Amino acid sequence: MSALTLVLGGARSGKSLYAEGLVTALPAPWVYVATAQAFDDEMRARIAEHRARRAEGWRTLEAPLDLPAALAGDRPVLVDCLTLWLTNLLLGEHDIAAATSALEAALDRRTAPTVLVSNEVGLGIVPDNALARRFRDEAGRLHRLLAARAQNVVFMVAGLPMRVK
Amino acid sequence: MSALTLVLGGARSGKSLYAEGLVTALPAPWVYVATAQAFDDEMRARIAEHRARRAEGWRTLEAPLDLPAALAGDRPVLVDCLTLWLTNLLLGEHDIAAATSALEAALDRRTAPTVLVSNEVGLGIVPDNALARRFRDEAGRLHRLLAARAQNVVFMVAGLPMRVK
Amino acid sequence: MSALTLVLGGARSGKSLYAEGLVTALPAPWVYVATAQAFDDEMRARIAEHRARRAEGWRTLEAPLDLPAALAGDRPVLVDCLTLWLTNLLLGEHDIAAATSALEAALDRRTAPTVLVSNEVGLGIVPDNALARRFRDEAGRLHRLLAARAQNVVFMVAGLPMRVK
Repeated sequence: MSALTLVLGGARSGKSLYAEGLVTALPAPWVYVATAQAFDDEMRARIAEHRARRAEGWRTLEAPLDLPAALAGDRPVLVDCLTLWLTNLLLGEHDIAAATSALEAALDRRTAPTVLVSNEVGLGIVPDNALARRFRDEAGRLHRLLAARAQNVVFMVAGLPMRVK
Repeated sequence: MSALTLVLGGARSGKSLYAEGLVTALPAPWVYVATAQAFDDEMRARIAEHRARRAEGWRTLEAPLDLPAALAGDRPVLVDCLTLWLTNLLLGEHDIAAATSALEAALDRRTAPTVLVSNEVGLGIVPDNALARRFRDEAGRLHRLLAARAQNVVFMVAGLPMRVK
Repeated sequence: MSALTLVLGGARSGKSLYAEGLVTALPAPWVYVATAQAFDDEMRARIAEHRARRAEGWRTLEAPLDLPAALAGDRPVLVDCLTLWLTNLLLGEHDIAAATSALEAALDRRTAPTVLVSNEVGLGIVPDNALARRFRDEAGRLHRLLAARAQNVVFMVAGLPMRVK
């Protein structure tokens, strides 16, 4: 497995920009794996903003569910973000344990650096609704599993990386 | 007072597993102080999962409210977790200031290491309801007070400890 | 621009007390810029508690909206807190981009140290309502912008500062 970096942080904490900087420090071309699905105007605006910011040299793959296929190439990859991938799995009632195992196997096969971005969502009050509680439990499990495999883990605060590992 | 460690972190951030590792590095037997009350199926499942994971050598005490009694022995103790203890105090309309003072006095009398686990809950949007706001205020106060006494404070991110103190 | 410090953290994480310590380590008098508006009893109680704690040597300026005017003097200043300033801007439907630019210009003109306190609010589950989502997006953007300018950025956990920058 080639170098794996996990970039965690809150909303608008600068995760994507920091992760892009890690990838573009490597020789182009780079692969941007977008997990977002543009199901409403707010999300469409966010996706357009992210896309407009990225420089030339990026190839974009849309992978709302099938991350292993998107990770199959031999170029540096940025996955932005795992939180939306997990949301897509949950809302589509997919098998999260199986999807996570397939993601791990795909990471094992990587021959170029991989940067994974994800939102830390577990530091507020316990949510009222059961789906949100399940989501943050699954996100926590996924982050722990990936952080254990990663060579580098950072926690973003106000655009600045705190090194966790 | 013997060594006090405070393990803070979000939901499913690996607090319990990390704290168990700190305690089981010491000679057995160890005391596991469970503050959870199994008032619904979701909570019963969580308690069962935690209990199944723990190795031999643990003695479990249930202490939804009376932490000082549970801390009275001379073995290494893991309290998991303060957040639920505080919830039990709040819902039972107990005097939190008095309970906190009694906890501090009990910690002062400890002759073996103590590890306290608690959820950080104050890093999201201000909750809509007043009880949740009061809860996170009380949790913040309790954490500050205990962190000031502790020799070690860690903040868990994705299963990894960040040393705060 | 004189030294700028940004103190971030969750609810009741000890941000204000830590920030006050930074300022009062400098020669008095100091300026306390309060952005809170006492629109209900809960907020009035919080303001009174903060005010009662502060020692002599503080001059208090109330600045729910006009931070640049409050920053105009040549004494050390503590702004407590940016989160409420942003809330006031949002609820009053002011131009946040313009207000932020004016704040940056005022910081550039500072000739004495400035300490800014703000709540980290983006580490929980995505809020249900659009205003809360917009608020945490704006807060995230503001924190990144100010953290990039600041000489010192700390993230408070249980009353203890973690140095981010």
